Amino acid sequence: MTTTGRSASGASDALAPETATVAKALTQEVLQSFDHAPERLRTLMQSLVGHLHTFVLDNDLTEAEWRYAIDFLTRAGHITSDTRQEFILLSDTLGVSSLVDLLTNSRTPESTPSAVLGPFYVEGPPDLPDGTDISGGHLDGDPVLANITVNDLQGRPIPGAVVDVWQANQDGFYDVQLPDLEGPVLRGRLRTDTHGHVSFWTILPAPYPIPDDGPVGQMLAAAGRHPMRAPHIHFMIAAPEKHTLVTQLFVEGGDYLGSDTVFGVKAPLTVPFPVQDDPPADGHAAHWRRLDFIFNLADQT
Amino acid sequence: MTTTGRSASGASDALAPETATVAKALTQEVLQSFDHAPERLRTLMQSLVGHLHTFVLDNDLTEAEWRYAIDFLTRAGHITSDTRQEFILLSDTLGVSSLVDLLTNSRTPESTPSAVLGPFYVEGPPDLPDGTDISGGHLDGDPVLANITVNDLQGRPIPGAVVDVWQANQDGFYDVQLPDLEGPVLRGRLRTDTHGHVSFWTILPAPYPIPDDGPVGQMLAAAGRHPMRAPHIHFMIAAPEKHTLVTQLFVEGGDYLGSDTVFGVKAPLTVPFPVQDDPPADGHAAHWRRLDFIFNLADQT
Repeated sequence: MTTTGRSASGASDALAPETATVAKALTQEVLQSFDHAPERLRTLMQSLVGHLHTFVLDNDLTEAEWRYAIDFLTRAGHITSDTRQEFILLSDTLGVSSLVDLLTNSRTPESTPSAVLGPFYVEGPPDLPDGTDISGGHLDGDPVLANITVNDLQGRPIPGAVVDVWQANQDGFYDVQLPDLEGPVLRGRLRTDTHGHVSFWTILPAPYPIPDDGPVGQMLAAAGRHPMRAPHIHFMIAAPEKHTLVTQLFVEGGDYLGSDTVFGVKAPLTVPFPVQDDPPADGHAAHWRRLDFIFNLADQT
Repeated sequence: MTTTGRSASGASDALAPETATVAKALTQEVLQSFDHAPERLRTLMQSLVGHLHTFVLDNDLTEAEWRYAIDFLTRAGHITSDTRQEFILLSDTLGVSSLVDLLTNSRTPESTPSAVLGPFYVEGPPDLPDGTDISGGHLDGDPVLANITVNDLQGRPIPGAVVDVWQANQDGFYDVQLPDLEGPVLRGRLRTDTHGHVSFWTILPAPYPIPDDGPVGQMLAAAGRHPMRAPHIHFMIAAPEKHTLVTQLFVEGGDYLGSDTVFGVKAPLTVPFPVQDDPPADGHAAHWRRLDFIFNLADQT
């Protein structure tokens, strides 16, 4: 990135008065071009235009910097595919996804906190019976028995809730990132029984870098930021007449909890995965962990 | 676009105090993540994050609206190719390109005003001898004889200046938009003679819509905006030790001068193309027009 800006801080008060006057008139002209848009679109576009123009002026943005931004967005678009979403990564690493999530969350303050969807959810995951080992039983990593309960805000179990779960393997990769893999792994859909309960076996999630071989990774590297996410398991839980909950559970004591690169960690979602001493009933190895968690879903409004 | 926002105006004062507090902490965390970036990058990223977060909060942006934005950017990226640049169109139609251009221009206030590059410039245009008809002599539209002079700020001619010129045809299409066309048309590169002069034949440019079959066109349609540009000819003029001038000349009296969809029209660049009565010397039709213009290039700083 090169710059011929007037000052390092790029303060707009360094602009000549006549330039500031013409700029103000231009911004007004653009704002007015949205005067006849439907109300919400008008609100959003005029707010966006105001912020974009203030950003350009306050920083005395150069042509070279503008070209860099256009090229950055172009490269982000071209690397984005069915299994790679660079714009979500950009939103995540700028904290925008977490902020939108915070607002979403604030609409149902009594439910379990939500967390960002992330770029690795896949529509139509495989339906699995209760007790399935979503690791297939042959992946490295500590076995975990997850006992999940889905309740409403009054603590009553929700039967038939759809529980989607997905996570990365021990090396930090989701199945969709492994081209040689056949079919879904560490990913599936279960349904709660009459007690609002599902269980499944999996492995302890590991920290991992977000995909950093694209423009977002270059942005992180240029800024001196690491690309690591704290270890977590994703959940999306839906039930009739309930607000769908998209969230993540983080491993208490895991790495990067204090510097998650997508700003996704929340204290109420950081939970223990305690090591168990007694062998489990169904023949898994003696070294295993438990995850017990109760999700509370709000009514749809 | 759907919304479940708290209010149509989405004022941030509608947020619960605890949500505002958590949001502020999140924004601070993201800003601090850029604390160790190189100075200009830190300035730009922290300004960008501040504006993005304020935009999300002020408008109480919903998850559905955020998803729409991600999808919009994705579609913009996927339609962008070597000959179609949707992100430049987006920047143009939001007035960002013109604003950056205004700042660029303000750095050399004595030179001929600049104008946006637009998405149709092609690197390495064909070298043409003085007097060439860049329309090939067979396109519909009023013939125009352009007499262009390139001077420095003291009014001294600049010999050997590289003059790139490109424009749309009578139907509003650039050559790169016509897949059946062989080779460049209405596009070329000339060099000024010892008097700083070049001349070429072309046709009177027509108003035309920007490419509107993509997400930017959908944005314009949703907002009730037309996609039309006022008629113009593009110029890019470069000479040793001079600041390269990227600009456009607009047809005085042309349509859409007051509502150009990319906010590109400037009074000093709006010039007459007067109809001539006497047949030109070189055998063109009796009905023709002249364009006489002197460009003034600033020294490189």
